[in-house]
Amino acid sequence: MNKITILIHCKDQPGIIASVTNFIANKGGNIVYIDQHVDREQNIFFMRLESEFSTELLSTDAFKIAFKETLADRFEMKWRIYSSEIKPKMALFISKYDHCLYDLLGRYNSGELNLEIPFIISNHIDLKPIADNFKIPFYHIPVTKDTKEEAENKQLELLEKHQIDFIVLARYMQIVSSKLISKYPNKIINIHHSFLPAFVGAKPYHSAFKRGVKIIGATSHYVTEELDAGPIIDQDVTRVTHAHSIQDLIAKGRDLEKIVLSNAVKLHSNRKVMVFNNKTVIFS
Amino acid sequence: MNKITILIHCKDQPGIIASVTNFIANKGGNIVYIDQHVDREQNIFFMRLESEFSTELLSTDAFKIAFKETLADRFEMKWRIYSSEIKPKMALFISKYDHCLYDLLGRYNSGELNLEIPFIISNHIDLKPIADNFKIPFYHIPVTKDTKEEAENKQLELLEKHQIDFIVLARYMQIVSSKLISKYPNKIINIHHSFLPAFVGAKPYHSAFKRGVKIIGATSHYVTEELDAGPIIDQDVTRVTHAHSIQDLIAKGRDLEKIVLSNAVKLHSNRKVMVFNNKTVIFS
Amino acid sequence: MNKITILIHCKDQPGIIASVTNFIANKGGNIVYIDQHVDREQNIFFMRLESEFSTELLSTDAFKIAFKETLADRFEMKWRIYSSEIKPKMALFISKYDHCLYDLLGRYNSGELNLEIPFIISNHIDLKPIADNFKIPFYHIPVTKDTKEEAENKQLELLEKHQIDFIVLARYMQIVSSKLISKYPNKIINIHHSFLPAFVGAKPYHSAFKRGVKIIGATSHYVTEELDAGPIIDQDVTRVTHAHSIQDLIAKGRDLEKIVLSNAVKLHSNRKVMVFNNKTVIFS
Amino acid sequence: MNKITILIHCKDQPGIIASVTNFIANKGGNIVYIDQHVDREQNIFFMRLESEFSTELLSTDAFKIAFKETLADRFEMKWRIYSSEIKPKMALFISKYDHCLYDLLGRYNSGELNLEIPFIISNHIDLKPIADNFKIPFYHIPVTKDTKEEAENKQLELLEKHQIDFIVLARYMQIVSSKLISKYPNKIINIHHSFLPAFVGAKPYHSAFKRGVKIIGATSHYVTEELDAGPIIDQDVTRVTHAHSIQDLIAKGRDLEKIVLSNAVKLHSNRKVMVFNNKTVIFS
Repeated sequence: MNKITILIHCKDQPGIIASVTNFIANKGGNIVYIDQHVDREQNIFFMRLESEFSTELLSTDAFKIAFKETLADRFEMKWRIYSSEIKPKMALFISKYDHCLYDLLGRYNSGELNLEIPFIISNHIDLKPIADNFKIPFYHIPVTKDTKEEAENKQLELLEKHQIDFIVLARYMQIVSSKLISKYPNKIINIHHSFLPAFVGAKPYHSAFKRGVKIIGATSHYVTEELDAGPIIDQDVTRVTHAHSIQDLIAKGRDLEKIVLSNAVKLHSNRKVMVFNNKTVIFS
Repeated sequence: MNKITILIHCKDQPGIIASVTNFIANKGGNIVYIDQHVDREQNIFFMRLESEFSTELLSTDAFKIAFKETLADRFEMKWRIYSSEIKPKMALFISKYDHCLYDLLGRYNSGELNLEIPFIISNHIDLKPIADNFKIPFYHIPVTKDTKEEAENKQLELLEKHQIDFIVLARYMQIVSSKLISKYPNKIINIHHSFLPAFVGAKPYHSAFKRGVKIIGATSHYVTEELDAGPIIDQDVTRVTHAHSIQDLIAKGRDLEKIVLSNAVKLHSNRKVMVFNNKTVIFS
Repeated sequence: MNKITILIHCKDQPGIIASVTNFIANKGGNIVYIDQHVDREQNIFFMRLESEFSTELLSTDAFKIAFKETLADRFEMKWRIYSSEIKPKMALFISKYDHCLYDLLGRYNSGELNLEIPFIISNHIDLKPIADNFKIPFYHIPVTKDTKEEAENKQLELLEKHQIDFIVLARYMQIVSSKLISKYPNKIINIHHSFLPAFVGAKPYHSAFKRGVKIIGATSHYVTEELDAGPIIDQDVTRVTHAHSIQDLIAKGRDLEKIVLSNAVKLHSNRKVMVFNNKTVIFS
Repeated sequence: MNKITILIHCKDQPGIIASVTNFIANKGGNIVYIDQHVDREQNIFFMRLESEFSTELLSTDAFKIAFKETLADRFEMKWRIYSSEIKPKMALFISKYDHCLYDLLGRYNSGELNLEIPFIISNHIDLKPIADNFKIPFYHIPVTKDTKEEAENKQLELLEKHQIDFIVLARYMQIVSSKLISKYPNKIINIHHSFLPAFVGAKPYHSAFKRGVKIIGATSHYVTEELDAGPIIDQDVTRVTHAHSIQDLIAKGRDLEKIVLSNAVKLHSNRKVMVFNNKTVIFS
């Protein structure tokens, strides 16, 4: 059985749902999941479908061609089609913090994540033993002001060689360049340790402490040119009081960061996220 | 424009989604919302659709007949079809607590609720002034051991006379009888002041205090024969500590009860709840 | 029995707790609650005590004098002492939104709030019927660009005449002037409909919608000269999705605003809030 | 500097706070933290203090003797006194699930936990590699019906030899015997994968799924003779919907279990928990 996931968005107009469901029925597919959303401010229609086909009847490539000719051109759709036979490949970028790394690798190990991790890149050597324990290749690519471009070329080479689908910055403490962002649009996931848009930039827990907030948060988002301003995938929060020091906020925040980043990884790798106009549509 | 909402459940089988969407397209309707769920344990398919039709083209009654003949019989569906032109009628049953009453009437007054409240019934006279303020007819129907059956007959008479669609027990402190339940199956919403199934029955805050829980809750559910065991519609919780007295739990709980009950009322009146096998499917 | 609540802050130094508890014991008081906090960044000590005295033995005024001479001068304390015999007086400022008003008056009516509400001021006449229902004097003081100063003088007159202790802006849609703020420092509570410091200023739900956040919030804070930048008393949040319109955010936000504002009112009127350096210490 | 933590409970009576703070001042100590609670139902007074002493002036043992003679006997206190110089020793009992183990060892490694872990015991060999990675001695003690008593004797021997202060059952899938419980009263922490008292016993996620709850939870508690009925230390919850399968509940629950168990470990090892009458007082 081949399961195909279709993500569509286009201008809202009558008849889309019926046309798409009809097309799938005609191809011999059975729709097992359908969800849609209409952005009424911008008049955009979004849809996500999962359909099952008996493998002998359908090649994914043939399906894509037929879909394009029959539907996508007619409704002027932006579309993506994935086969469940292929797992997405994720590259992990890390620095010195290990909590998100342990969390993601623990889930990966236990089979909770539907993806492959061909390698880990770090600008520091410190966390190599963890990568070794989990038997994942680790590349130490130091980044200094002078070597930034060279380092990035090494990164890009690895990403291309391993046909990486998306990148996760698990508390990677370097700003990624425009070049990388433009090669992986809406495919680089960052975890920011605040409830965005509050406390953009460096040291958000220090800012939260100074402002005296009663709740702190963490935000996973796609990386765009503007710092911490990309489409938000997930957020979570926890209560704090006057009795918590900055160190306490950092410790409590680590638990948020882990959960919020792993949620984003799961949503992205299960193809449940669509991006439009710097916002996400998250299907359930 | 007539908006029709369709709720369906039946044995899961290939082709349902395509058939239904096709049927609506053929009738000239535009699907503006579709959501579905498959219960894989029991192999049951659930769907909710909203479709828009130009009013001159379609009567709701004719649509129902065509739907039944073309689809419902073929797939052996249980189904309900509602027109947006008709608001559901809700009867409020209360006793002496006023917090849920204020909350519901405040929302009703501000236009937040898509329903009508033809009357309020109470077994006590205390809250009549609130009903008067909001200009809603108030019927005082005392209930004693001896008058229970007579009281219920009066209630039923009012419910039928006003063609009530569903009943909300807003901290109504009487157990409703089998007769009423069987006339309004999955149409009587109760608010229970605990996180069910913990603390079934009377005085749940006292039990929560005694057990020393760190979180208390409230649960809205449909009333069934078995006490506090009907299908759960919504739940919410809040943290408590050793420093909270029973009175504190009761006060904090009131805020939960209000939110959880009004959520249930909104979900039910917007036809977003389906019940199967004592559980709910809640559409977004 | 006279219950006295003492709030203290001063430079942290050894011996404060022992000296204060000793002093109370010597006066014949029994300490029934003690809580303290040390802000280690700024080296400031905060304490809140509740002590019970038999009434014949102690006048609050005499206690204050002795406290000042024996302790406050020695440790250079800022201090406040309240007797449980006197309830704080709260003035309500409103405009056209009724949800916070209903919520506060409902709680007031049921005895949940330990305070008096001598009157309500509004710049619009719309909500007068609600004040009438709850039998609270209502003053309609319109505010236009030209009459702003005159209106404020009327407000001040009422506040002074009724010896108001603190003011609650329950979605009052006017910026209060420096004059009022300086007369009631850390005594004017506002509810802002966002998770501050995100979305300062007007139309925060619109901004939240535009940014695509997955969680919205509300914040109660003391009013200071800088807009929405005063000390935060309480915050709460709720999840939203791409499917929520701006109208949905506004509706969901109303429930947050009610809870967060009434929490702030309870904390303030129970003398559980201390302010230092634009942050609050909230005692339990 | 020696920091001493004192935990006290006794019948509530006037003068306790002043007497204790006085005693510490006389011994040359500076109180840096004080918190108290009165259980008014049972008339019990609880207090937790932290005081700093210059090391040359005070031995912990001498302090204990003086405390007993001067205060504890007089007020008939139950009391415990700890020096910050000694870290508590925790034994980890595990079986086959690794999520709580990874979480605790990750925190231990990063210095977040104020304790020592002399060894891990498991009835299965599967997770030995994780213990090895973290360089913690691992004892495989299989448990079968026939060897249960023998296995427990081996456990007790290890516990005594290493002077273990408390035991954490990190998803240990065996019921511990009365013998072990009586040797470590309120010193064995278990994580139960439900929101107790709902879903006591085996397979709580299956029961939660069957009941159709909208929120699931996890509970850390001290182990007592009665199954899952010991004093609750911490609880947390997360929302679920009809769309979540039992497998989804299990996966979401793992994240709760980790957080709730590590919170309990932190509270216990920082001596912030007191137990009375099967309930906990948790100091902040």
